[in-house]
Amino acid sequence: MKKMFDRLALSLLPLPLLMAAAPPSYPEKLRDETLAGDAVAWDIVEDLTTEIGPRLAGTEAEARARQWAVKRLKALGFHNVHIEDATMATWVRGAETAEIVSPFPQPIVVTALGGSGATPPEGVTAQVVGFDSIDALRAAPAEAVRGKIVFVSHAMQPNQDGSGYGYYGAVRRSAPAVGTQKGAVAVIIRSLGTDYHRNPHTGLTSWNGVAPIAAGALPIPDAENLERMLKRSRNVTMHITLTPRFVGNTATGNVIADVPGTDPDAGMILVGGHLDSWDLGTGAIDDASGVAIVTAAAKKIMEAGRPRRTIRVIWFGDEETGGAGSRAYFATHKTDNVVFVGESDFGADRVWRYVSGFAPANKPLDDRIAAALFPLGINRDKGEVEAGADLGAWIHAGSPGADLGQDGTRYFDYHHTPDDTLDKVDPKQLRQNVAAWTAMLSLVANAPEKIEKLPPRPERRQ
Amino acid sequence: MKKMFDRLALSLLPLPLLMAAAPPSYPEKLRDETLAGDAVAWDIVEDLTTEIGPRLAGTEAEARARQWAVKRLKALGFHNVHIEDATMATWVRGAETAEIVSPFPQPIVVTALGGSGATPPEGVTAQVVGFDSIDALRAAPAEAVRGKIVFVSHAMQPNQDGSGYGYYGAVRRSAPAVGTQKGAVAVIIRSLGTDYHRNPHTGLTSWNGVAPIAAGALPIPDAENLERMLKRSRNVTMHITLTPRFVGNTATGNVIADVPGTDPDAGMILVGGHLDSWDLGTGAIDDASGVAIVTAAAKKIMEAGRPRRTIRVIWFGDEETGGAGSRAYFATHKTDNVVFVGESDFGADRVWRYVSGFAPANKPLDDRIAAALFPLGINRDKGEVEAGADLGAWIHAGSPGADLGQDGTRYFDYHHTPDDTLDKVDPKQLRQNVAAWTAMLSLVANAPEKIEKLPPRPERRQ
Repeated sequence: MKKMFDRLALSLLPLPLLMAAAPPSYPEKLRDETLAGDAVAWDIVEDLTTEIGPRLAGTEAEARARQWAVKRLKALGFHNVHIEDATMATWVRGAETAEIVSPFPQPIVVTALGGSGATPPEGVTAQVVGFDSIDALRAAPAEAVRGKIVFVSHAMQPNQDGSGYGYYGAVRRSAPAVGTQKGAVAVIIRSLGTDYHRNPHTGLTSWNGVAPIAAGALPIPDAENLERMLKRSRNVTMHITLTPRFVGNTATGNVIADVPGTDPDAGMILVGGHLDSWDLGTGAIDDASGVAIVTAAAKKIMEAGRPRRTIRVIWFGDEETGGAGSRAYFATHKTDNVVFVGESDFGADRVWRYVSGFAPANKPLDDRIAAALFPLGINRDKGEVEAGADLGAWIHAGSPGADLGQDGTRYFDYHHTPDDTLDKVDPKQLRQNVAAWTAMLSLVANAPEKIEKLPPRPERRQ
Repeated sequence: MKKMFDRLALSLLPLPLLMAAAPPSYPEKLRDETLAGDAVAWDIVEDLTTEIGPRLAGTEAEARARQWAVKRLKALGFHNVHIEDATMATWVRGAETAEIVSPFPQPIVVTALGGSGATPPEGVTAQVVGFDSIDALRAAPAEAVRGKIVFVSHAMQPNQDGSGYGYYGAVRRSAPAVGTQKGAVAVIIRSLGTDYHRNPHTGLTSWNGVAPIAAGALPIPDAENLERMLKRSRNVTMHITLTPRFVGNTATGNVIADVPGTDPDAGMILVGGHLDSWDLGTGAIDDASGVAIVTAAAKKIMEAGRPRRTIRVIWFGDEETGGAGSRAYFATHKTDNVVFVGESDFGADRVWRYVSGFAPANKPLDDRIAAALFPLGINRDKGEVEAGADLGAWIHAGSPGADLGQDGTRYFDYHHTPDDTLDKVDPKQLRQNVAAWTAMLSLVANAPEKIEKLPPRPERRQ
């Protein structure tokens, strides 16, 4: 109740009073203009997904995407546009087929998880043993698993903040290694997703020192069909072929673009998303939308006049398959001059909450941001700011920052599937994202007060 | 307005008055029992899609499905359960891949249309020429098409009666032959569907004497991506490989099951759907649901006591790739003794209208059926009864019959795609279908009056 009263109090503050503390860039005006008519973000998403399409980290397609990004960011008027290279161990997909051999012969759709090992080229045939959760697999004796194809299911459902991905994610991250240690010949999972289409969800799995075997994901309709088979028969045999491989070390890189500030001593703002995508779709929601949103917001602020603080936009390489881009940037640039970070990497649906991490001294700035977000239907929420896989390291090192939490209800219908395509992006919700980022960034970039650092924080538990 | 008044008048008739003419099988009671609790239909759909899965006409999978059907229909207590064989020219899918070579290199999802010819094993590479409709392709000079890959789009949208499939269907049925005649090296179409998933819609194309070339369908996201490329460049080059082939003459067949009647002179009722499915999905809505619905209704009537007229349930073979099952049954059995036909082949969503074809003398029976359907939310509609691909020939030869029109709003999201799987069937709507068929069939099977034949009707225009 107190929280609700706080919100009410904020929203009832007379506008001139808020404006008294507001910067000269008129954040509300910029916010409302982008909400009504931003085309920069949509054009980036449409053009990148059409002209480049899938751009798996470390591949030639990701390199083409970097060149495309440099051209686009220069055309948009950003300064200091350049690529910073990094090196990574690059994994590519091979053949992927599966079929039930008996007692109900039929094809099954499968895709390899990122980092999967390979079957022999002719595949493997073995009995399927099913587990309804990663915990059930962990509890199983090795003799129940040895020589078998392990199938692991889960109960993930859509939720607004997407936290089911963390809660159920162990099935993708850990089941392959656990199954391998118990002697499985291959591990397949129910896709870590919430849709009912014949599109499997790929994504990275973690081997933690175990020698990789073939690890794949079934679309949810195929997973449920297999579950029905396992209820009908104790002897379901499957043939599966997955032949992905590592192709050695290749180049990835980050594309950097600046909105120069007037006051280098006031510190720098880092905002970003990732340019790479999984190879199955065209990476529209993951994460063309994210780079488009932060870029459109930064451009809007740039056009309104030079801000006090430099805003650096980073389109990271290799977020999906290991984070080489983020690691390289952190190693090169550290966090010394960074006073605010923000990451957009959760699709293009509307921002519904604001979670911030400022020092107590910066509560007035925090409050101004919250006030500027309310008219977009965004509530202020408790909790720790996270940023994400690309900029989370700065948060943990003590940089202030904020999360503009997007509605994740349908995100895991498409995430890491062939279905991550332009048509999944709602232009109106995309503009609301740009408006929220524009409001927040213009306030942070032009804040007259000093933005204080925070003490370092331990790494996230997940 | 008059129509609405008629409906009102019917629904206001006191129940005892209607019951005075009603048969002894208590159609309303049977209807309401199936609506509340039928499990026969769901079990058929679940078991057939799980235990057999895809069952392309003419293949070993369809033959397995026939054996499965015989076993199930016998277990359900039907009489005279047997297979009537037929022969067909069988087409099977081969390799299918496509990618944009330039200027925007990336993979494109494609599937061959039924009856498609083949590219060489290494595929063909050519410039893509796009048309926004079949009419635009028809109007194009041959020199605009010769040596190119023809892409044809359309504007199909979901609608309740599914008539968009007829209206826009020429793009699938005719564009490949038209493009071939103008010298195309391959023809690809925007899938004849209404969804936005990376699942292409297959389906038969007609060559009308033209020697087949490779003909494929792109999922709608891929088709729209290609449209965007064609807007950006006059020189989009694609590489496409489709290697389906005809494997010669193989067996298909119809599975037949009877509910014997007490009065052979009163004529026979034929109801059916088709057992075969396209190979991409498990054929849950097309047409496990159809055979399940009519079978569950016939079983319910059988359990209520022997009806006056024999009800013959037919699970047809090869509806999808040419209709060999229907043709064989018609050739063997003709229409002499058939006084009513009905076909269920439009998914599993609710029945919303009743369209009948009775002789004027049978208006009282027609009225009793309409009255029994009203409580299921089914309106009486004008228009000509059609039955469908399997039983339409009987209607055109003069058999009475009726269509229980299903809601087709989401049917073409899944039709002929990998996405035609069990999870798309809504158990509640499936039961409403069974209830509607139970009400109608019990009234027709037990009608005390003679059911009159009609004059033959010309073939449908489509």
